[in-house]
Amino acid sequence: MRTDGRQFNQLRPVNMTINPNKHAEGSLWIEMGDTKVLCTATVEDRVPPFMKGQGKGWINAEYSMLPRATQTRNQRESARGKLTGRTMEIQRLIGRALRSIVDLQALGERTIMLDCDVIQADGGTRTTSITGAFVAMALAIHKISHQVQFTRYPITDYLASVSVGINQDTTLLDLNYEEDSKAKVDMNVVMTGSGKFVEVQGTGEEAPFTRLELNSMLETAETGIYELIARQKEALGEAGLRIGGTKS
Amino acid sequence: MRTDGRQFNQLRPVNMTINPNKHAEGSLWIEMGDTKVLCTATVEDRVPPFMKGQGKGWINAEYSMLPRATQTRNQRESARGKLTGRTMEIQRLIGRALRSIVDLQALGERTIMLDCDVIQADGGTRTTSITGAFVAMALAIHKISHQVQFTRYPITDYLASVSVGINQDTTLLDLNYEEDSKAKVDMNVVMTGSGKFVEVQGTGEEAPFTRLELNSMLETAETGIYELIARQKEALGEAGLRIGGTKS
Amino acid sequence: MRTDGRQFNQLRPVNMTINPNKHAEGSLWIEMGDTKVLCTATVEDRVPPFMKGQGKGWINAEYSMLPRATQTRNQRESARGKLTGRTMEIQRLIGRALRSIVDLQALGERTIMLDCDVIQADGGTRTTSITGAFVAMALAIHKISHQVQFTRYPITDYLASVSVGINQDTTLLDLNYEEDSKAKVDMNVVMTGSGKFVEVQGTGEEAPFTRLELNSMLETAETGIYELIARQKEALGEAGLRIGGTKS
Amino acid sequence: MRTDGRQFNQLRPVNMTINPNKHAEGSLWIEMGDTKVLCTATVEDRVPPFMKGQGKGWINAEYSMLPRATQTRNQRESARGKLTGRTMEIQRLIGRALRSIVDLQALGERTIMLDCDVIQADGGTRTTSITGAFVAMALAIHKISHQVQFTRYPITDYLASVSVGINQDTTLLDLNYEEDSKAKVDMNVVMTGSGKFVEVQGTGEEAPFTRLELNSMLETAETGIYELIARQKEALGEAGLRIGGTKS
Amino acid sequence: MRTDGRQFNQLRPVNMTINPNKHAEGSLWIEMGDTKVLCTATVEDRVPPFMKGQGKGWINAEYSMLPRATQTRNQRESARGKLTGRTMEIQRLIGRALRSIVDLQALGERTIMLDCDVIQADGGTRTTSITGAFVAMALAIHKISHQVQFTRYPITDYLASVSVGINQDTTLLDLNYEEDSKAKVDMNVVMTGSGKFVEVQGTGEEAPFTRLELNSMLETAETGIYELIARQKEALGEAGLRIGGTKS
Amino acid sequence: MRTDGRQFNQLRPVNMTINPNKHAEGSLWIEMGDTKVLCTATVEDRVPPFMKGQGKGWINAEYSMLPRATQTRNQRESARGKLTGRTMEIQRLIGRALRSIVDLQALGERTIMLDCDVIQADGGTRTTSITGAFVAMALAIHKISHQVQFTRYPITDYLASVSVGINQDTTLLDLNYEEDSKAKVDMNVVMTGSGKFVEVQGTGEEAPFTRLELNSMLETAETGIYELIARQKEALGEAGLRIGGTKS
Repeated sequence: MRTDGRQFNQLRPVNMTINPNKHAEGSLWIEMGDTKVLCTATVEDRVPPFMKGQGKGWINAEYSMLPRATQTRNQRESARGKLTGRTMEIQRLIGRALRSIVDLQALGERTIMLDCDVIQADGGTRTTSITGAFVAMALAIHKISHQVQFTRYPITDYLASVSVGINQDTTLLDLNYEEDSKAKVDMNVVMTGSGKFVEVQGTGEEAPFTRLELNSMLETAETGIYELIARQKEALGEAGLRIGGTKS
Repeated sequence: MRTDGRQFNQLRPVNMTINPNKHAEGSLWIEMGDTKVLCTATVEDRVPPFMKGQGKGWINAEYSMLPRATQTRNQRESARGKLTGRTMEIQRLIGRALRSIVDLQALGERTIMLDCDVIQADGGTRTTSITGAFVAMALAIHKISHQVQFTRYPITDYLASVSVGINQDTTLLDLNYEEDSKAKVDMNVVMTGSGKFVEVQGTGEEAPFTRLELNSMLETAETGIYELIARQKEALGEAGLRIGGTKS
Repeated sequence: MRTDGRQFNQLRPVNMTINPNKHAEGSLWIEMGDTKVLCTATVEDRVPPFMKGQGKGWINAEYSMLPRATQTRNQRESARGKLTGRTMEIQRLIGRALRSIVDLQALGERTIMLDCDVIQADGGTRTTSITGAFVAMALAIHKISHQVQFTRYPITDYLASVSVGINQDTTLLDLNYEEDSKAKVDMNVVMTGSGKFVEVQGTGEEAPFTRLELNSMLETAETGIYELIARQKEALGEAGLRIGGTKS
Repeated sequence: MRTDGRQFNQLRPVNMTINPNKHAEGSLWIEMGDTKVLCTATVEDRVPPFMKGQGKGWINAEYSMLPRATQTRNQRESARGKLTGRTMEIQRLIGRALRSIVDLQALGERTIMLDCDVIQADGGTRTTSITGAFVAMALAIHKISHQVQFTRYPITDYLASVSVGINQDTTLLDLNYEEDSKAKVDMNVVMTGSGKFVEVQGTGEEAPFTRLELNSMLETAETGIYELIARQKEALGEAGLRIGGTKS
Repeated sequence: MRTDGRQFNQLRPVNMTINPNKHAEGSLWIEMGDTKVLCTATVEDRVPPFMKGQGKGWINAEYSMLPRATQTRNQRESARGKLTGRTMEIQRLIGRALRSIVDLQALGERTIMLDCDVIQADGGTRTTSITGAFVAMALAIHKISHQVQFTRYPITDYLASVSVGINQDTTLLDLNYEEDSKAKVDMNVVMTGSGKFVEVQGTGEEAPFTRLELNSMLETAETGIYELIARQKEALGEAGLRIGGTKS
Repeated sequence: MRTDGRQFNQLRPVNMTINPNKHAEGSLWIEMGDTKVLCTATVEDRVPPFMKGQGKGWINAEYSMLPRATQTRNQRESARGKLTGRTMEIQRLIGRALRSIVDLQALGERTIMLDCDVIQADGGTRTTSITGAFVAMALAIHKISHQVQFTRYPITDYLASVSVGINQDTTLLDLNYEEDSKAKVDMNVVMTGSGKFVEVQGTGEEAPFTRLELNSMLETAETGIYELIARQKEALGEAGLRIGGTKS
């Protein structure tokens, strides 16, 4: 059993509150245990310069942590004058993951910007951000679908993400901060509702891992992701009905 | 009557939730109507270089808005690579205001950093930040007072802040965003529990104002601030008992 | 009596030299005691992006101190790579103050940029900058009024600024650096020729102040500002005749 | 067959020239087809601040492309004033990968900085950088092993990296730029000489991928990596003899 | 005799490899002894904003050193976030020198960007960059001359550069790093094929120099430059035939 | 005759006012015609990190132009967030030139920082800065020589600088802005009181120049520099008596 009493393949308690923000086109307050992220989706009727004139849309993401989201305070990136490599890596990941299940052609010349702001951190902030940003984006697209007549619905599948790791030969699902610090291998998995991989990022800085260990982690991640997608459907309700391609 | 049904000298609904953050030494979630700010206090056992070796402490503040705290999305200052003048002005104001009611000698060689993060904005974010940061700081100092034996309690008085303005010859208390945009004069007032001014900042960019108008605004602000201080005492409970100098 | 022999409500010696700069549309070399500021006004036939297409003009200001304007040398902001919060705050204040007495509609689609460069500092550099920038701007607008046929003269009133403070229960006008360092309260006031307030910024970081003290400071500031406006009129001569709304 | 005539699981021609740089402690000029990278290893007798006093060493990496390494010229990051997210991601990956096969305790309080400068790019620059940086690092450690008496040899295993991808249902090894642009899935794999995974990064932005496809890519990568490690051993010669843990 | 056995007026061994880069319109790998520079020329069909609409072209240059080009590693300018003064000075010099022998009118609205990347440094990197950039530029202009029908050939003369210095009363040609460190005077000379000066930059920081010493250095430089121009002609072959104004 | 009525080898009117700044250890207001520069010297009892522990001093310089020093307004470098290449080049030149006539050993572990701020520009701002900075530095060293007992006087010679150029086959001394814009060759010369060259920087971007033209410029510069040094001696008076090595 784990320090917080969970089974090895058990998620932390998941809470999702839709549209907590009165300005954004879509937003989600998501909690995975003590990790809390506010995801807001902003729809803009233009695309970045490199996408202009192609009749296609774009999905972008930004990620940030409040300075005291963590045990010790972190300096603000605005005060440092630049983003850390970690932040850049995470926001590139979030954007890439979301684009994989959006039909940019169907979206039309619009940009949806997902802001993932970590209010409190206890491990898994990047995977929680992806799971939450998907819902915020789905709410925004559902909202604009009342004004815009989409010929195809722009979201082709559900999408969620979870972390897995190996600690003392045991594969753990959804690591909290303490578990993450001790894990010898750390893997983030992003999957679609139809059970395909969008991102697989495994890192064995502390200790390289075998193919068997990789397989075990992927399987554990899969069950966690299906559970998260079930929670997304529940949170979205009617706003999720037109999303394509789900398996279950 | 005002668009949201308030009296001219009436505050918006005020909500304060203490210690919403599990890591910080003190924190407050404060809502003034639709303006929502998370204030966290971090205690560090060192002071900035220019204060070293004086046996005194320091209070610092940082202020930021989430990109979609506002009606249209703002670019992150971390992405721009620098703070705006507005942000710098506000965080200098918050720090200065808090230092006015802290006995830095009594605090000893410690820094308390107040982070004011605006989660949602609807006018009055800087005054709400000051009111909230005071409570977060008081919680943090109360907490460390269990370990540290203060000879004098470092907080000498209560402190709160509110905005006032003049719109069509009427003095309004605690302007929301819409009222603020239309006001010809805009004033931010910071006062102590004993009824003294710490900061008075009035700006008549749209139209200069008379001495009479200034007086009317100061009096209106005073009543609002006493109300806010009453709410701070309620929120702090026992943690506020040793704070010096209150008038009421 | 004060260390430099002045009465409590006496300004330092004021010197104004018009158009010392051969390139600028208007310029003023202003000295308040040992504080020396060069103010230049540049007229450009375009407005910032956010003002485009409104048929209105804009007034902007920048402020800077030479590195050895002060007793110890300050690092250049160009070498640091960014502006300090103090500089940003001051240049926002100067621009806002000047805009309050300019009819931007009457000015037409033009920007006037005021550069206030402190050549030597001895207290009151921001208030001296405002007083000086007004004259430089008035000279520039007078100059272009020979080419441009203004239907209304764009300057609606005179404008000047002075600092006041309280030291050992005495209200002092126009503090020099030494007095400023010792004052428990520090206030900057900007007023128009018709006796209205444009900016009132009082700060009691060292010690909060009462309503009576505030009143005393405002009254002292008022007499100083009228004197400065008289000096501005003298310096401007014919170039100031069309400025609207003066009281005296 | 592929556009350049290779088999699906065939590497491009590999060339390694050891110590082309007369100043560095170790260096490698590596070519994978038209991708050319200069890797230099610099040994410094100190560690970064966060590692001080632990008696352990550190491995760091920096990555950059010459502006005309690519088909169209890229702006220099030094001229832009900041690193792109892509560069940061890659240099974090290189450092992490190398640290996985270095015994930092055995290395002692030293930093080895690996600079990977892409002279010409044709796909696979990050994987080529890892493969090359390993050799440059091994040469540098071999060189200092003549002065320093290591109790354990600090390199515990060989390490190489290769890209794999899927294009039209075919798994391709070591994609060139053209193949990379067309691939629906792109994966970078880093493995040790003893056949363990250090990094697995698969991205299905264009199209999510199945578990079967993932397996196929991992197997193809493995054969490529063993071939590259054979080439590293050849290049290192005597300098590679004390490296631990190889499988073959 | 010099430490490397050269005569006082003898160049180091010169090697030039044309078009080592498969992407650039023109490129040169140039070695002067152990100083190795890769020069690439990029042709773009547009000019910088300040040149627009004049029917003329522009020549620009950027210069950089790989971090371990030197004996001890230098921090990357991209990591520092800004260019050093030395780099800016050198790249301004290279651009200015090349423009002196280009007929910008004849070139038409095109920009040629020369990138000079120092792969290994042993003194004279700026002069080697100029000599090499000329050849890269000439190759690029020759290449586009097949598509573009130039009425006048845009290159009006050959151009090369060399360093000279004085050490213990002896004038030395083409100083290596060790000689450069010991020289009391250091001069960089840029000349055309017709024997005119384009840049003369002499610096006597260690010891001011006389007119006689200046004359001796200029004469020594001249012989070195003619030799370099002979090598450029050889390297360019047919691609150099239409270049104007050569003397020899 | 020239547009301003000068002879070809005649300087513009030169004015020097010593110690206009009440804070600096030494300062000079220098005017060469309409070019006006304020030079201040700041003495600090420490040296830059790279000079520590050598028992030697250092001379540094910074250069800047007020935004409206020129005919059209220039953006501030502090607002741009970085120095231009031109500024860096000039301040490196000023520092290097001054160091050539200072005995750093004799100066002891002190830094003298010269700030050259161009108040108004009409050509020759870098040469005027050097001529003026020498006097400001000499005043500062003279001032500290009352406290510090120098065994050798740290200034070994006088130093001044002037520009020369060629326009329509005529060599002109001390070019103003209009002349500078039209000159085909532009040269800045720095010389010592004993007639030696410290810097010779000639640029023929518009048209390469012959050896004869170079000689003519050097001779013209020499006469101008002797005149400037005579003016420096006059301005320094007693403060210049211990400066070594003068020729005249």
